[in-house]
Amino acid sequence: MELRTHHCGKITEKLTGEKVTINGWVQKRRDLGGLIFIDLRDRSGVVQVVFSPDVSAESLAAAEKVRSEYVLSVSGTVVARSEGTVNENIETGRIEIHGDSLEIINASKTPPFQIAEDSDIAEDIRLKYRYLDLRRPIMQETLKMRYEVTKFMRNFLDSYEFMEMETPMLTKSTPEGARDYLVPSRVHPGEFYALPQSPQIFKQLLMVSGYERYFQIVRCFRDEDLRADRQPEFTQVDIETSFMSQEELLNMMEDMMSSLVQQVKGMEIPKPFPRMTYKEAMERYGSDKPDTRFGLELTDVSSLVQQSGFKVFASAVENGGYVKGLNVKGKAANYSRKDIDTLGEFAARYGAKGLAWLKVEEGALKGPIAKFFDQEEAEALLKAFDAENGDLLLFVADKPSVVADSLGALRLHLGKELGLIDESKFNFLWVVDFPLVEHDEAAGRYVALHHPFTMPKEEDLHLLETDPANVRAKAYDLVLNGYELGGGSQRIYQRDVQELMFKTLGFTEEAARKEFGFLMEAFEYGTPPHGGIALGLDRIVMLLAGRSNLRDTIAFPKTASASCLLTNAPSSVSSQQLDDLHLKVNIKETVEQK
Amino acid sequence: MELRTHHCGKITEKLTGEKVTINGWVQKRRDLGGLIFIDLRDRSGVVQVVFSPDVSAESLAAAEKVRSEYVLSVSGTVVARSEGTVNENIETGRIEIHGDSLEIINASKTPPFQIAEDSDIAEDIRLKYRYLDLRRPIMQETLKMRYEVTKFMRNFLDSYEFMEMETPMLTKSTPEGARDYLVPSRVHPGEFYALPQSPQIFKQLLMVSGYERYFQIVRCFRDEDLRADRQPEFTQVDIETSFMSQEELLNMMEDMMSSLVQQVKGMEIPKPFPRMTYKEAMERYGSDKPDTRFGLELTDVSSLVQQSGFKVFASAVENGGYVKGLNVKGKAANYSRKDIDTLGEFAARYGAKGLAWLKVEEGALKGPIAKFFDQEEAEALLKAFDAENGDLLLFVADKPSVVADSLGALRLHLGKELGLIDESKFNFLWVVDFPLVEHDEAAGRYVALHHPFTMPKEEDLHLLETDPANVRAKAYDLVLNGYELGGGSQRIYQRDVQELMFKTLGFTEEAARKEFGFLMEAFEYGTPPHGGIALGLDRIVMLLAGRSNLRDTIAFPKTASASCLLTNAPSSVSSQQLDDLHLKVNIKETVEQK
Repeated sequence: MELRTHHCGKITEKLTGEKVTINGWVQKRRDLGGLIFIDLRDRSGVVQVVFSPDVSAESLAAAEKVRSEYVLSVSGTVVARSEGTVNENIETGRIEIHGDSLEIINASKTPPFQIAEDSDIAEDIRLKYRYLDLRRPIMQETLKMRYEVTKFMRNFLDSYEFMEMETPMLTKSTPEGARDYLVPSRVHPGEFYALPQSPQIFKQLLMVSGYERYFQIVRCFRDEDLRADRQPEFTQVDIETSFMSQEELLNMMEDMMSSLVQQVKGMEIPKPFPRMTYKEAMERYGSDKPDTRFGLELTDVSSLVQQSGFKVFASAVENGGYVKGLNVKGKAANYSRKDIDTLGEFAARYGAKGLAWLKVEEGALKGPIAKFFDQEEAEALLKAFDAENGDLLLFVADKPSVVADSLGALRLHLGKELGLIDESKFNFLWVVDFPLVEHDEAAGRYVALHHPFTMPKEEDLHLLETDPANVRAKAYDLVLNGYELGGGSQRIYQRDVQELMFKTLGFTEEAARKEFGFLMEAFEYGTPPHGGIALGLDRIVMLLAGRSNLRDTIAFPKTASASCLLTNAPSSVSSQQLDDLHLKVNIKETVEQK
Repeated sequence: MELRTHHCGKITEKLTGEKVTINGWVQKRRDLGGLIFIDLRDRSGVVQVVFSPDVSAESLAAAEKVRSEYVLSVSGTVVARSEGTVNENIETGRIEIHGDSLEIINASKTPPFQIAEDSDIAEDIRLKYRYLDLRRPIMQETLKMRYEVTKFMRNFLDSYEFMEMETPMLTKSTPEGARDYLVPSRVHPGEFYALPQSPQIFKQLLMVSGYERYFQIVRCFRDEDLRADRQPEFTQVDIETSFMSQEELLNMMEDMMSSLVQQVKGMEIPKPFPRMTYKEAMERYGSDKPDTRFGLELTDVSSLVQQSGFKVFASAVENGGYVKGLNVKGKAANYSRKDIDTLGEFAARYGAKGLAWLKVEEGALKGPIAKFFDQEEAEALLKAFDAENGDLLLFVADKPSVVADSLGALRLHLGKELGLIDESKFNFLWVVDFPLVEHDEAAGRYVALHHPFTMPKEEDLHLLETDPANVRAKAYDLVLNGYELGGGSQRIYQRDVQELMFKTLGFTEEAARKEFGFLMEAFEYGTPPHGGIALGLDRIVMLLAGRSNLRDTIAFPKTASASCLLTNAPSSVSSQQLDDLHLKVNIKETVEQK
């Protein structure tokens, strides 16, 4: 075969009159007036080739055998198109190639779906024929952007003197955190490696080793039940620093992310990014990753309704809960009783036992529960919501977590449903001052919200023994348009603070040694102050590329049941392989499986 | 703590008179004449701080508590050293810092070995305390070089319009090749993922998808018994191209590797790299990865001795084997009978049943087998070896593979023992025209030397059905100083050639479908001509850094039994974890384990 002299998409009028050879795939073939037109495609784009009896009868005959997605090598002369046939939409639209030789390098069966269009193909078909799906322009653009993003981040971090360092994939299973993927050992019967959920421990050890500025774009693994925005294996931009304050780290990340958006989207992102405490985020948005592209914030009316005649509200407050609401501005007329019932069903998925509502008409509250509020309460409610005629007020009264979850989700739902979200915006936000620990009802003890090496804020240290739930951590999440892009923390490096932390988590010193032995030992040999962050690459690419599914950012993703429809992984293996690994399959019949 | 204003190793006389704050580790403390000298180290280097009663009595008192590897924050003024105390060996040797404040950020226990020296520490201690071992300058330099190498390669490949693309880690177990590491599935009882031995199939699919130029610096896995130059997880620079000839690919790789050596070592590497066929490499060096930094080549004397009275030689040739030898130039006097016996034991490890020898004295052959050769044979041998007085001739007579293996290994052994190797050289070499298939005695069939998608050379295609063992592949290995840095091939993209190849390997069409189904199906939708190469990053870094052990190029390596001495991976897991994965440990008592 003859190798190309030029790329299809790069042939413009500058080459008029020149002889070129191109290689690529047949995008389209049209027969017209004894001529054959072929759009030939390579990675760079598409160019039109014309075969005619005048130029080469032999090539014209060869072109007749050509079908979509055939691989060709074509030679010919670049000729300017006549006025009427110029296509201004593509780079190569002012020329065509008059083909004088055509070699079919490879044939193609008819693809199960058309390559060119971004048509509505069922996702399981796309995943089964992923190699064809990946030919579609939108997939090519997304994966090119993914590469641009990683290239940008590597260069950026290098300019800040970070070193990329590799950490093990075959490592130790840890009892805390999500479920590990395990890898049986052949050499050590009955023992297992774990695939890393993150390089957390190793990056901290690299700080102990004095590398000071580490990063890695690295695959991580979690064996969890999957949602649309999760994959069993995902890629993390993992960063750790020594001798750098939280403020410096956050500033650097703002520089990185704003420069990235500038480069990829050509958009200016104002700096510094807004910061919001966890507490404020939960209060105003019912979420620790609020989408700040629209308002519709939560209003706390607990104190206004706790004396009211509406028992549901009064008793929620009495039991330590809240009554909060959303003012769906000017949309009362849009929502019938039935529509509101539907919203109530939506809220119920997040634990809300009911969704109370009021409409504002003629300056007064209307609706089935309006009668429970006296004049003073009604006025207070109107004022609290800044409510006007035509507004719809929606309420959840419950314990704090249910109020936040259900109204937070309802807020997002309504934001989309009512078109309140400006999709062109990139609203970055730092959520800071996360709680250090939370009480785990099931375990009957406090557990670390991030991990047990997260540093408490100095000013809250005195509460660690007496009121741990109110200790704030030096932990921070980076949020973009309601998605958590990543998070991190400063780590404990002082032995006494670490011991206090373990005590808070209910570990004896011995138990702590057992679970975190080698890391604790490492910490005894001169540990610098250190901290870091980890960002989800898949999610960053998804948002920058404007896709709604993580799978569209990954060349070969897995389904919600963690399968690969292309290779059919996972699959059964031979009994020899199991014997080598000292394993037996042991499937217990369970109710779920029957 | 006070954060640094400067890095330790960057403080020079330009900063004389300035106030600086530095953070780092105590490399050394000396007390002298009422003063305390502390060498403080960070990633950038070391600087000397002096504490004196004149500057700050308080800091002096604090400095008394300081021990090796404590983490400090120190402030002070940069002062030029007096003439006699200048240290020209380090960047900071013309100044010192007169410390006026010292904060102990963290203490350190006494390390189990000294950090500064490149002393002879047992490797198991180094691996157990890897976080301390990684503080040693030689380890820091090697890992910095590793980063420089990956950065260089990424930039280089980007400049050639390659895109880095990620492929799955949780993939499908394939029956061919080395042993897979398996990952049990929780969601699919009794099924397993495999960790990739290489992204081979995915990178070929990306070519089918039209990405044309792919690369990835990627972790790969092989569950094999380990040697010094193998790790269970290793990093590969993985490359695949479409529409690029073998010649273009090899030229590009030469450009990459020579530019890399230029950048990292400041050495000019002549291009093009020498090329040698597999056949020539085996004949001259007994190896498909010859170290060409020295001679001591193999000489084939089969035809000269097949009629001789020495039965061992004559019958080896009669049975289809070879008699080959090395001329150890001028070293006859260095090797006693006992020494030669030791060489014989060495050769025996590679299957040689014996090592015959002759010495050249007064123009004649001497030694126990000399008597078997008549005048004519003796002269022919002297001529064949270009032998002179004082030379030692060593012979192995056996089947071809044993002759090659044993003499090839003996050649390397003698090269080192006799100091024949110029260690300053970087001798790159392409070995090309590998056999396409080899006969597997155990399986009773031909097996692919690389993999079943490797392209045969066009001119040998006609032999594929009649004489497959003599078909050469479009396969190439890159060799440096006797190490295989990597290898690759052009791949089969024509359906008829692929079918012929499967037939040669003894597959029915149905069996081929079963084993390679989705890849073969993908190949039916317009496969471009493609090929690639994969280079071992760990090995490249090892050779560039002048280390002799792959483990020294990896931050957290595994031992020969695939253990991590730092984390104690692999380890046992809970029965809950096994239940979740539908597994039972099934350790069979074997003779080996008792």
